[in-house]
Formats: sequence, C-alpha cells, structure tokens
Amino acid sequence: MNIPQSSFPRVVIIGGGFAGLSLAKSLCRKEVQVVLIDKHNYHTFQPLLYQVSTGGLEPDSIAYPIRKVLQGFPDFYFRLAEVEQVDPEKKTIVTSIGPLEYDSLVIAAGTETNFFGNTSLEENSMAMKTIPQSLNLRSLILQNFENALLTDDLHKRDALMNFVIVGGGPTGVELAGALAEIKKGILPKDYPDLDTRRAQINLVQGASRLLPAMSEQASKKAEDFLEDLGVHVWKGLRVTEYDGWTAKTNDKTQFETAALIWAAGVKGVRLEGLTQASCQGKGGRLKVDTFNQVEGYQDIYAIGDIAEMSSEELPYGHPMMAQPALQQGRHLGKNLVAKLEGKAMKPFVYNDKGSMATIGRNKAVVDLPKFRFQGIFAWYVWMFVHLYFLIGFRNRVVVFINWVYNYIRFDREARLIIRPFQKGYPKELYDSQSD
Amino acid sequence: MNIPQSSFPRVVIIGGGFAGLSLAKSLCRKEVQVVLIDKHNYHTFQPLLYQVSTGGLEPDSIAYPIRKVLQGFPDFYFRLAEVEQVDPEKKTIVTSIGPLEYDSLVIAAGTETNFFGNTSLEENSMAMKTIPQSLNLRSLILQNFENALLTDDLHKRDALMNFVIVGGGPTGVELAGALAEIKKGILPKDYPDLDTRRAQINLVQGASRLLPAMSEQASKKAEDFLEDLGVHVWKGLRVTEYDGWTAKTNDKTQFETAALIWAAGVKGVRLEGLTQASCQGKGGRLKVDTFNQVEGYQDIYAIGDIAEMSSEELPYGHPMMAQPALQQGRHLGKNLVAKLEGKAMKPFVYNDKGSMATIGRNKAVVDLPKFRFQGIFAWYVWMFVHLYFLIGFRNRVVVFINWVYNYIRFDREARLIIRPFQKGYPKELYDSQSD
Repeated sequence: MNIPQSSFPRVVIIGGGFAGLSLAKSLCRKEVQVVLIDKHNYHTFQPLLYQVSTGGLEPDSIAYPIRKVLQGFPDFYFRLAEVEQVDPEKKTIVTSIGPLEYDSLVIAAGTETNFFGNTSLEENSMAMKTIPQSLNLRSLILQNFENALLTDDLHKRDALMNFVIVGGGPTGVELAGALAEIKKGILPKDYPDLDTRRAQINLVQGASRLLPAMSEQASKKAEDFLEDLGVHVWKGLRVTEYDGWTAKTNDKTQFETAALIWAAGVKGVRLEGLTQASCQGKGGRLKVDTFNQVEGYQDIYAIGDIAEMSSEELPYGHPMMAQPALQQGRHLGKNLVAKLEGKAMKPFVYNDKGSMATIGRNKAVVDLPKFRFQGIFAWYVWMFVHLYFLIGFRNRVVVFINWVYNYIRFDREARLIIRPFQKGYPKELYDSQSD
Repeated sequence: MNIPQSSFPRVVIIGGGFAGLSLAKSLCRKEVQVVLIDKHNYHTFQPLLYQVSTGGLEPDSIAYPIRKVLQGFPDFYFRLAEVEQVDPEKKTIVTSIGPLEYDSLVIAAGTETNFFGNTSLEENSMAMKTIPQSLNLRSLILQNFENALLTDDLHKRDALMNFVIVGGGPTGVELAGALAEIKKGILPKDYPDLDTRRAQINLVQGASRLLPAMSEQASKKAEDFLEDLGVHVWKGLRVTEYDGWTAKTNDKTQFETAALIWAAGVKGVRLEGLTQASCQGKGGRLKVDTFNQVEGYQDIYAIGDIAEMSSEELPYGHPMMAQPALQQGRHLGKNLVAKLEGKAMKPFVYNDKGSMATIGRNKAVVDLPKFRFQGIFAWYVWMFVHLYFLIGFRNRVVVFINWVYNYIRFDREARLIIRPFQKGYPKELYDSQSD
C-alpha cells in the first residue's frame, strides 16, 4: 500500500464519516502516524441525502473531499480502498489494494441498509445510504413520472406514481415530506398532461409511532405534519415482500408501486476476521466498552454508528447520529494519546444534544434535552444545525442558496436524470461498487 | 406516445440544446402544437463541461430541467426518448417510446464525438460531450492519482500522471488549462506523498495552431498562456492509435498515458431514414438552405450544431457554438409562423458576436468582430458571458459562488469520485445509455 515506515506507532482508521474524521483531526500533530481508509474519496453528509434524492440539492454540495480535510496534517495518509478483512493476530488488515499493518485499528465504517435477509426486498427496493444510491432514487422517481405519461393503463399509471417508503425513522419521514412537497409544488406544473393528483406517498412504519427514538410529542406532530401534506401514514404495518410491482404486508393491505424505498433498518458494515462475540450488537454492530474498545481486543476500537456501547439505560448503545460519532471520535483521539503516554484512558460520556427531523417547509420537530418544540422555529433550528455540521464553507453557501431559492420559488431544480436507473441492472455498478 | 391531437399543426423538435430550446420559446403561444424530444430530461450547458471534469463545478449547476423551461407553455409536450429513425414519406419519427407523426420536424440533435472510425481511440479514450462523460473523466483523473500512489514502478506512475488531450479547439485548450491549474494548486497539497511535479499535461493539435477558428493573435496568446502554466503544446501532430496505455502518433513521438481525452472532432448525431445527400455536410452534418430546410425536404429543418448552412465564405457553415444555435432557433420560430400564415420565410443571417476561450485564472482570449483582447479583462468578459447564457437563476448564483470560491482559495472542491470509472466496463452504461 506504499505507506512509509514512521518512528511513531500507526493508527489505521477505517471510514471517513463523522467519527473517522473527528478522530483524524484530534490526532493531528500528535506522536502517531495515521492512515485513513475509505471506499469513497469524500465524506458524505448523510442527513441530507434525501434532498439529493428529491432534487433539492446537488450531490457535490453534501460531499467533501477527504484529502482536503487532511491537507497539511504531517504523517497522515489517505487511501481509497475497500477493507476486506482484519487479522487481529498479525495486527494487519487486508484491503482491495493490499495488506496494511497497524498498531491500533479504529473501525468507523458505519452501517449499511439491512434487509434482514429478505431477498425480494433487497433486489427490488431502493436504499438511500450513499450518494450513488440517492442519485439512483432521484433518477427512478423522475423516470417513473416520464413513464406514467406513456401508458393508457390507469392501473399501471397509478403504480408508477405511487411511492411506498418503508421505515418511519428520520430518513423515512423526511423523504416522505419532501416527496409530498414535490407532488404539490412541481408535478402539476411539470406534467400538465398527467393527473398528478393521483400520485400517492405512503409511509409504512412497523412500530406504533413515527420517529420512535424521539418524544411522543414529536411523533404526533410529525404525523400531523405529514398528513397535512397528504402523506398516507401506516403504523403497525410491515412490508414483507416486494416483486418490483406489488408490495405485500403482514396485513391484508397491498401496495401496487414501481418505487419502494427501504429505510427500515441498518446493520454494521461487516468486516471478516473478527470473533462472533464482538459482532453481537443489534444488526451485527460491534460491541464496545466505554473506551470504545471492541469486545475481546486490546488494539481494535470502534466508533460511530458501527459501535454499540450498550448499558442498562441504553441497551442498543447511543443513537446512530452525527453527535455520538463526533464525540466518540474526539474522545478516542484523546484516549489513544493518553495510552501512548502511559496514562489511563477515560470512559466515554455522551453529551446528549437532542435530536430533530424536518418534514417540510416551516415544519420540523426538535427534542432538546430540556425542552421540545415543533413548527417554524424548529425548522429554522434544523436548518441552522445542518448548515453548521456540513463540512466546508463552499458547501454551506451552496446549500444555503439552494434552500433560500427552493423556499422562495417552491422549487427543486436538481430534478435531473443524470444517469438513468435501470431496475435489475448489475447491482455492483449502481450500488455496491459505487456505494 | 400519448400526445393528444390538436387543432394546430404539430412541430416536433428533436433536442433540447440551445437551438431546440430557443425555437421552443419562440413558438410559445403561437398556433402550433409543439413536442420536444430529448434523451435527457435536462438542457446541458456544454461550454462548462470541462469544469465539471476538473472538479470546479457540480454537474447540476450546468444542467437545467427542460420541463421547467416549458412550464406554462400551452399545447407543449416534452418526451424523454431517443429518436431512432425519420420516415419523411409518412411524416413520422420512430423513437424508443413509439412513433410520432409531425407536420414539421426540426432536428436540433447536435453533434457527438467523432473518432473517424478509429476503434482503438473510440474504445480507450475519454470523450467530453455530455455530463455523464464529463463525470467519468472526473473520476478517471482522480482515480489515476490514487493509483499512482500504489505503484513503485516509476514508469507506470508517470503514465498514470500523464494527461494527453487531443484537439486544440476551445474544449482541448480549456481542459488543458484547468488540469494545469489543478497540478499547480491542488495536487501538491492533496498528495504530499507523491511527486506530482512529474504530472504532465500534453495538448496535441493536428493543425498548425491552437484555436484555429479564432484569430492568429488569440492562438498565439492561448499557446503562451498554456506554456506559462506548464502545458506541453504539440502542433502538427496527430494521435493515430491508443491502446489504453501507449498513444502513437503520425510522428515518432509516443505518449505513455492512462488518460487520453479525445476532443479532436465531432459529427452530426445520425438519424436513420434521411437521404445520403442530406447528410453530406462535414462529419455527416445535415446540409440546410438559408431557411434551415434540410436539403431535399420541405418539412424537415435542422438548426444548431447539426445544421451546416454552407456558403462560399463559410464552406462548413457557421461555427458550432451557442450563438448560431440560439439565433437559428429564434429565426426558424418566426419562419414557421410566417409559413403557417402563408407569408414568405426570410433567410437566416448570422449576427457574429465573436468567440472566446479561457485558459485559466486571469487568462482568456476574446475575438470580437471589431477588436480582440486577451488576459484578465478577457477573462472577466468570458465569465460574464458564460453566466449570462447559463440557464436558470439558481445555476448562475451557484456557478458564480463556485468561481469566486475557486478564485480566492485556489481550490476545486468537487474533486469527488461519485461513481468510479472502470475502463472497459459496459460502455452503454457509462456513455451511450446515459449520454
């Protein structure tokens, strides 16, 4: 892999998300060599992927070159590669561009969509965890309307204009809201020769309420907001099968739809070579102690979404959001330096800053540790926080301008089919290879 | 294709470039039904494609939804389709979504890259006529540097950092300049572990000077600018063969390169069904009279790059640029209306507004009909004109902000490999299908 030997111990970080990058930054100018590996050459701001899918933002404004983050960091190396395996005995990882030895390994590889072994769903539904996947979804949404124009079969036309989103977490809720706004503001003008009032947005949630990680109040309000926008919210309903056209559920309800978006679960990105015991977290996430050390290993750490630091109060660890990832990255950086200096590591304590979701124009829900609010002020807070955590000044300005423009004009100008999505096309090109 | 019958005659326009859209606009609220067909759902601002390839702009900011242009136009229809054939006898076109009858047909399909039948070049070199192609090139450029890091073979590493651009027209010149600026401003910071001074940019021109369509003065200055930036300019040299690694020329000169960009010729997009005689323009372009009528047909017109309105002074017709396309579109709109009203059509007269090319920061060349200038003022003029002709307010603002940012920070933040490019991967996915 052509990484020169250093006089300092080598920390290898897998993943350039919030966790990996905040760790990398905290190790700058410390007595370590750092190698950061990611399968993309950019950091993805996942919370805004749904806006890429719905034409509100360009992908380039929520991505940031990892090499740029690391510019000027001495003894830092970035490699574009996929990690295939960990060999804890030899303290080596095996990657698509060869093996690499480590002194400390930090796994910050995040999560991927979990279809729970259901192949009909995996093959026929759309995921939205990466930029290529979000662009595929953008293309499919637009292609379906173009195709709806071409058929005289009303049944088929309705299915092409029916969107079923499975999963009532923030991703599902935000996507449903964005689609509803497109239906209202753009479709009638873009497709005057199509009865777009017949377009449907169905949000299917297995649990008894939306946004189950947030307060009851937020759930209730989010549901109200969605229904105001014309979204059909289904609770206690699970999609069990989807052949690309008909979605069956655990109930008698069925949906005829040409676009099913699966946002109903994630699992830890799987690395071969770790013991079964270490991957026993929910969805195969890595079990870590309060120092983010992976169960059973001294020199392997996990941070961010892939790490499950469970406790009595938090049986499944911290929420899978930017905040715990950022805080764990920063904290582990200090611990690694302390350990090298022969000092004791300190346990991680999560500083809960709350959580939020946006539903649409002037409609958001915010739960702060001390108080909760919904509506237009929540929406401003949501926007401010998202701009703040977006990496890069240029990105912030471009996203801000898009938002102002979209707000004033009720528009989404990135409704572009740059690369058409073909169902059943080699998955490795459209998803895996590029995701 | 589900286009309703209208009481007005039907004008079918193939292509949503400058020509097709300006014609469409000029037919708004006239006594015609208009059907615009394009294989993309967006208009591409081709003059800035090279900035997408070099990470200076996001693709979405130089694309604009065609449906948005046509919003509110009564009796206008857009269809996303590929036109396969014209049947002048039946006054019908055959498309990927079925046949369509026309009363008047306007071909504004533009041009595509011409490899002059050289298969080694067609298979192994990169073209840059569409957004997907530009994104492929962006990915390849960045991937080559990532791969250069991984090899100890100096020969191979040099080839991965060697860019050969064939064609000394505006595309070749602008791309060479942009690559040279990346080499200078970004590579040393992004790749501290790579000797990026060894990166080479070679611009190979068959003719005796660069920018042959512009003045001698502009050619000379462009060459000086490029050489100041460290570009190797080769004149009177033609690349004859390229196997993906070694580029052979008509001379003893050879290049070892992993990235050959072919910008040395275009040809009219081919439509089956027209007579041989009508496609006898240079590169198979359609020969038209001064009313833009295609030779041998009464009801078929061609406008923009695909139309060759030749005369004694202009043996190959007007230059293939935005201006003639815009003017022809507008003019033909008036002529079609005149014809319907039983009035005489007027011949097209080109109002030459000059031409320009940019080489880099503060470096551009401008030929106006009355005077010529080069340097920083030309560069401002170039930027102003390009912002002016870009479609969409949001696009203009986003491009402007990118330019200001890139100028102040000497940066290009869209250096993202969103979808990796694999040489030899099914072309239909990476080019044809999506281009």
